[in-house]
Amino acid sequence: MEEDRAVAFAGRAQVTAVSARNRRRQHGPSIDPLKWFDDPCELAGSPEIDVFVELMGGADGPAKRAVEIALSHGKPVVTANKALLAEHGRALAKLAEDNGASLRFEAAVAGGVPIIKVMREALRVDEINSVAGILNGTCNYILTEMERKGLSFADALADAQALGYAEADPTFDVGGIDAGHKIAILAALAFRAAPDFNALRIEGIERIEAVDIQYARELGYRIKLIASARVATGGVIQRCNPVLLPLEHPLAKIDGALNAIVIDSATRGRLTFAGAGAGGAPTAAAVAADLIDLLAEAKRSVFGQNIAALANLSQGEAPDSTGQFYMRLRLRDRPGAIASVSETLARHNVSIDSFLQKTVTDAAGVPIVVTTHDVSENVLRRCVTELAALDTVVGAPCVMPMEPAASAA
Amino acid sequence: MEEDRAVAFAGRAQVTAVSARNRRRQHGPSIDPLKWFDDPCELAGSPEIDVFVELMGGADGPAKRAVEIALSHGKPVVTANKALLAEHGRALAKLAEDNGASLRFEAAVAGGVPIIKVMREALRVDEINSVAGILNGTCNYILTEMERKGLSFADALADAQALGYAEADPTFDVGGIDAGHKIAILAALAFRAAPDFNALRIEGIERIEAVDIQYARELGYRIKLIASARVATGGVIQRCNPVLLPLEHPLAKIDGALNAIVIDSATRGRLTFAGAGAGGAPTAAAVAADLIDLLAEAKRSVFGQNIAALANLSQGEAPDSTGQFYMRLRLRDRPGAIASVSETLARHNVSIDSFLQKTVTDAAGVPIVVTTHDVSENVLRRCVTELAALDTVVGAPCVMPMEPAASAA
Repeated sequence: MEEDRAVAFAGRAQVTAVSARNRRRQHGPSIDPLKWFDDPCELAGSPEIDVFVELMGGADGPAKRAVEIALSHGKPVVTANKALLAEHGRALAKLAEDNGASLRFEAAVAGGVPIIKVMREALRVDEINSVAGILNGTCNYILTEMERKGLSFADALADAQALGYAEADPTFDVGGIDAGHKIAILAALAFRAAPDFNALRIEGIERIEAVDIQYARELGYRIKLIASARVATGGVIQRCNPVLLPLEHPLAKIDGALNAIVIDSATRGRLTFAGAGAGGAPTAAAVAADLIDLLAEAKRSVFGQNIAALANLSQGEAPDSTGQFYMRLRLRDRPGAIASVSETLARHNVSIDSFLQKTVTDAAGVPIVVTTHDVSENVLRRCVTELAALDTVVGAPCVMPMEPAASAA
Repeated sequence: MEEDRAVAFAGRAQVTAVSARNRRRQHGPSIDPLKWFDDPCELAGSPEIDVFVELMGGADGPAKRAVEIALSHGKPVVTANKALLAEHGRALAKLAEDNGASLRFEAAVAGGVPIIKVMREALRVDEINSVAGILNGTCNYILTEMERKGLSFADALADAQALGYAEADPTFDVGGIDAGHKIAILAALAFRAAPDFNALRIEGIERIEAVDIQYARELGYRIKLIASARVATGGVIQRCNPVLLPLEHPLAKIDGALNAIVIDSATRGRLTFAGAGAGGAPTAAAVAADLIDLLAEAKRSVFGQNIAALANLSQGEAPDSTGQFYMRLRLRDRPGAIASVSETLARHNVSIDSFLQKTVTDAAGVPIVVTTHDVSENVLRRCVTELAALDTVVGAPCVMPMEPAASAA
């Protein structure tokens, strides 16, 4: 019987009213027959609506206020707003719980891949070691095009903008913020905690050059922007940064605007999910599935756990983050330049696994690449700070962790 | 509040009674404290239980009777029994609906991959074109080992049996029945219909030889047992058979005992899911997730649609199943053998794309491989029947469809 209602709903969902920044902008189907609200907050509190669907975006401002109003009126909310959930997840979950209203956000992460439902419901009893993903299609598209066509970051970004894959202001995407918001949400679900966006260490892809992609390839790796949350000795480490993945790693094969998530569960082993990361139809399908879930009357708390039981993610970086690193520097073409680098590495006990130098010298200097043996990340960062200060080194070194080949397959 | 109960349940689930074929066999945790039933049907109808969990297996016999009894008493059932669902899905869904009882079966398909929840709930509004998967870990393990070690089918099967990956009687697995049961269930969810196992065309992997795997590799393909259901002009085509997949196809990369599913949705594009296909812990996690769903009070009909709305899958094979095929024959090493083959192909207008012959002659004859241009499958099958009857041809030809490289990526 309930299913009847869900089916009927899916067929006859009534959009009764709408609010947007600009009433005249084309929104696809005509909004003329709908009641118009200049103020989304007024719409959210209107007694004429049963469910509030928020697709405005933004962590603060009208989206946040409108969602708060709907929830405090006990109205279920469906949203695609990752920034809102990542930055205010706990407060919103409390508001939802206090007012007995559902808050659903399948469309907020990984577009067409139903990863929220999978993590919140299907993996409910799993002991999860890590969740890692390619969660920003813009970055992945840019990195893929840099590799395929040998483009510079700036040219690949311009292409992505021309094709509508990147915003006019691309900072949120290429700076790793968007993927960071998404992993904060997945980390909450994986570890039955509230999202803690501030605990994330974020690095974007802006500093990656064509030469890095080339060198990575020669070493048997591909560069991907990886957002991840993993259990470590000190707690959970949440990061979003470019990583060298061995070619056989499941995330190394994800190209273009696709998204993918790899979950390492102590219970089930490794699970992989991949699909379109964005787009109107996938987002609409995710919102519709959330609406149907509301009608199926499933009782689900916002992060799969009621507020009283919601943990805090440990903010402390685990003490011994150790591994191999890729480091690309540009040196002035003068005697002793390489010696000054190796001397600095040696002084910090950073042991070299391989050393690559192309005969290419560009205006900015000679690019050289060093890959290290296992080293503490803190030690490496101190060493890099010193290297950057050398007068033989031009510009900032580009440093990326290398995923061990053993963890792939 | 409901979530509280689910959490409490997950922590304190009371197994109150048990039934099994043999009380003395080791079942992991001791069953001594539990009430014992010699007859699972008596257990299923017992007023002392709230939920009946069926992990016996088998399409008929005690598993079927016990599930029917539980459902007709209005008790929710959680099962891992794919044969039962695939062969009696409609009748059981009706029984469940008539008695207001849930019937859940996440553990029945793809082990640790929560594909049932994804298809039944998350893809509820999607228009699905096809679902295809590697759904039998035993077959995939055998094919992977044949490729890695150059083993014969018989030797790879013996290895799989020694390692516990294959049953003493492997017919259900290597004959494609098990994967067939699973795709019948996924097809029902994809097309909002009742499962129709009898409409499936099933072929196993028993006839694949090491030489086929070698030739496929040379052609740029890998051989996988693919269970699939896809929309075609005549209706939905359900099959389970070995297929040559281009190396870049997402299912070509799935090795060993893994399972994977690719869904082609008109709404979301291509979705890929991969994970462990079997095992005690993944199965237990899937059963526990189903139990928690029962407590979340989600109202879900068995195949995502109530009985009145449940379609029949069109049983008719689509008329124009056309594509490229791989065909391996063994010829007697005598003059005119090849001419007789090419003459037969020409007479049926089967056009040859490539012709491979190794200098290897084994006792059974000279293996030759023909790949065709696009050809109607019916024409090809008639041609193969004639080829098999030639006295220059030894044994039965091995014929497999080749997935077009274009559909990969």
